[in-house]
Amino acid sequence: MTLAAASDSVGIVTPQHAAFESALALKCGRQLPRFDLVYETYGTLNADHTNAVLVCHALSGHHHAAGFHTSTDRKPGWWDVCIGPGKPIDTNLFFVVSLNNIGGCHGSTGPRSIDPETNRLYGPDFPVVSVADWVKAQAHLADHLGIERFAAIVGGSLGGMQAMQWAIDFPTRIAHALLIAAAPRLSAQNIAFNEIARHAITSDPSFHAGRYLEANDNPERGLMLARMVGHVTYQSDDGLRDKFGRRIQPNGGSGDTQFQIESYLHHQGRSFSQTFDANTYLLMTRALDEFDPARDYGDDLVAALSVAQADFWVCSFTTDWRFSPARSKEIVDALISAHKNVVSTIIDTAQGHDAFLLPVPRYLDVFRAYMQRVAWSLGFANRPDNRLTAGPAS
Amino acid sequence: MTLAAASDSVGIVTPQHAAFESALALKCGRQLPRFDLVYETYGTLNADHTNAVLVCHALSGHHHAAGFHTSTDRKPGWWDVCIGPGKPIDTNLFFVVSLNNIGGCHGSTGPRSIDPETNRLYGPDFPVVSVADWVKAQAHLADHLGIERFAAIVGGSLGGMQAMQWAIDFPTRIAHALLIAAAPRLSAQNIAFNEIARHAITSDPSFHAGRYLEANDNPERGLMLARMVGHVTYQSDDGLRDKFGRRIQPNGGSGDTQFQIESYLHHQGRSFSQTFDANTYLLMTRALDEFDPARDYGDDLVAALSVAQADFWVCSFTTDWRFSPARSKEIVDALISAHKNVVSTIIDTAQGHDAFLLPVPRYLDVFRAYMQRVAWSLGFANRPDNRLTAGPAS
Repeated sequence: MTLAAASDSVGIVTPQHAAFESALALKCGRQLPRFDLVYETYGTLNADHTNAVLVCHALSGHHHAAGFHTSTDRKPGWWDVCIGPGKPIDTNLFFVVSLNNIGGCHGSTGPRSIDPETNRLYGPDFPVVSVADWVKAQAHLADHLGIERFAAIVGGSLGGMQAMQWAIDFPTRIAHALLIAAAPRLSAQNIAFNEIARHAITSDPSFHAGRYLEANDNPERGLMLARMVGHVTYQSDDGLRDKFGRRIQPNGGSGDTQFQIESYLHHQGRSFSQTFDANTYLLMTRALDEFDPARDYGDDLVAALSVAQADFWVCSFTTDWRFSPARSKEIVDALISAHKNVVSTIIDTAQGHDAFLLPVPRYLDVFRAYMQRVAWSLGFANRPDNRLTAGPAS
Repeated sequence: MTLAAASDSVGIVTPQHAAFESALALKCGRQLPRFDLVYETYGTLNADHTNAVLVCHALSGHHHAAGFHTSTDRKPGWWDVCIGPGKPIDTNLFFVVSLNNIGGCHGSTGPRSIDPETNRLYGPDFPVVSVADWVKAQAHLADHLGIERFAAIVGGSLGGMQAMQWAIDFPTRIAHALLIAAAPRLSAQNIAFNEIARHAITSDPSFHAGRYLEANDNPERGLMLARMVGHVTYQSDDGLRDKFGRRIQPNGGSGDTQFQIESYLHHQGRSFSQTFDANTYLLMTRALDEFDPARDYGDDLVAALSVAQADFWVCSFTTDWRFSPARSKEIVDALISAHKNVVSTIIDTAQGHDAFLLPVPRYLDVFRAYMQRVAWSLGFANRPDNRLTAGPAS
């Protein structure tokens, strides 16, 4: 039996493309004359179109969130632990949409696309994109798919920020917003780590001021460093200790590498540097830095969230020090002050920020319970038995 | 009045050199055929030679710990807040010795020295040095200065590790070991950050496999990134928030830089990259990674510390996440199990790992109180009045 044939897998999936031929005005003042989005769907849209769930990806994510592209794929989509039959986002109940955002490098219009106005690669000239721009493009995709209102919009990290922005910008089009390991805006420390990653990329001589593709080059040293910084900071000190401790790499290999944590980081960095686009990394980290929905509401997060009509699940992880429970609490406190329905969950785990991608049992249980409540509250699933109506614990 | 003339300053100081013409066998199996140490002293050695304090520097430190080299210097030595008349290490009581370690780049034998065996620069061929090697070289300096036993050996971070190693390797030559913001060995996360810094340097095309001086080049991009990583991780999230928050840089300047934290990091990184030697940075971080005194004692820290005869002060800072209070507690617990005298202090501050360099009032108070007790317990200062005999709080 292949992995794709497992009963809890969405199986083999095929990416789809949607082309949007009218201009998309961006927050920076510029516009995309046209744009494409690549996306995948899992499950079946019901007759009323009420069971759609939008999955928003984080910094290095893309549209391939669940299942396999071929029967020989060894790895499923990036959120396969959360999406599939019987999983937290249960594809027996929900129609799941997952896309690559504009500015991305996995098929949607981005720096590797041709600028129709110049007929050359966008590269570093791709306009600055914001979380609000992504949300606006996602709304166009929803229109394209005939989805007026999402049952839920879900995301971790930068994905959670998109779900929050949806609740503010399109209050009537989202019933539930699930914000996992997110923050209302980045701290100076967050920005600092992003800037180190950006500086690693832009100071790499192979960056060629962003025109590396034309130069037949790739700033892989910079991308590798950027990813290494990311990897360390997305995990906790305890998690790294459990996983690597001070173990020495068995047979030396590349001479200088000694501790296992070092060769692990090299491996992660190197493979990322071969597959990800440097200009996309710069764009996405800038969008993260700039995200601050309160800014448009007089720096008042309560005012920003007051316009929302959605219910919220806000989930964080004890050892996540990049988007700590304290940052999620800021969102929860603002939602409470704004008189919104909010369920807050803090998951005790050693796995740091990356926990949102991992099969942490209690996380999956609470996530699943919340999503089941979404389904029955919107009337397309039976109300579960009493054991489950107790709902997710806070 | 110049800064150097302030009553609590050691004033104008002049670095001194000591040349050691016999070979120094290193832990790696190699040896230095001869070596030089550059050092400074503050205060006066008493007739019995019992009032000497050795100050050990951290990763990017050097011999110039206090005072000024000229009357026009705008900045004093790196630990001027702690060394001087009336300061925690009171130069009215103590004779303070501060040196640049071997492998350094401030005047002691290091990668920028000529290898007498090849008559060319050591560069990347400088032998791997360890904390134990530094301590051994420091013991030669003590012999040179006629110091049989130090009243105290003091250091923060990597400096604290040297003080710990002294207590183990030369138990009869150290009365008090002061370990500030230290750890018994690095965690996987610590090693990971060091490896990112090293990789930034070695992957810089200007590194030339360590022969950048002969190539008339300098891996300044790599050094800059290494320092930026250091700067972020030596401070706390709270500290950066208090200092920078999300404030925008007033007049844009270099175009891309936007948040103040970014231009701050650029400035710090750039100035470091002009003054520090890349090979030294690699050597020092490797020594940090490898430090693990328990390893020679069957991985038993209690056994390692059992040989010590010194009394200990172990001090940590609440928001230091690179060398957290939990890591200091490991040292304290081992010292208690080894039946040593130990005073443990945890200072509540937002300033992270860098706090050990900063004028945090309670830190300076407790430090001063401990050092006064050192002075009167060794008989070269009067026992203070009752208010002070209560001693430092835990």
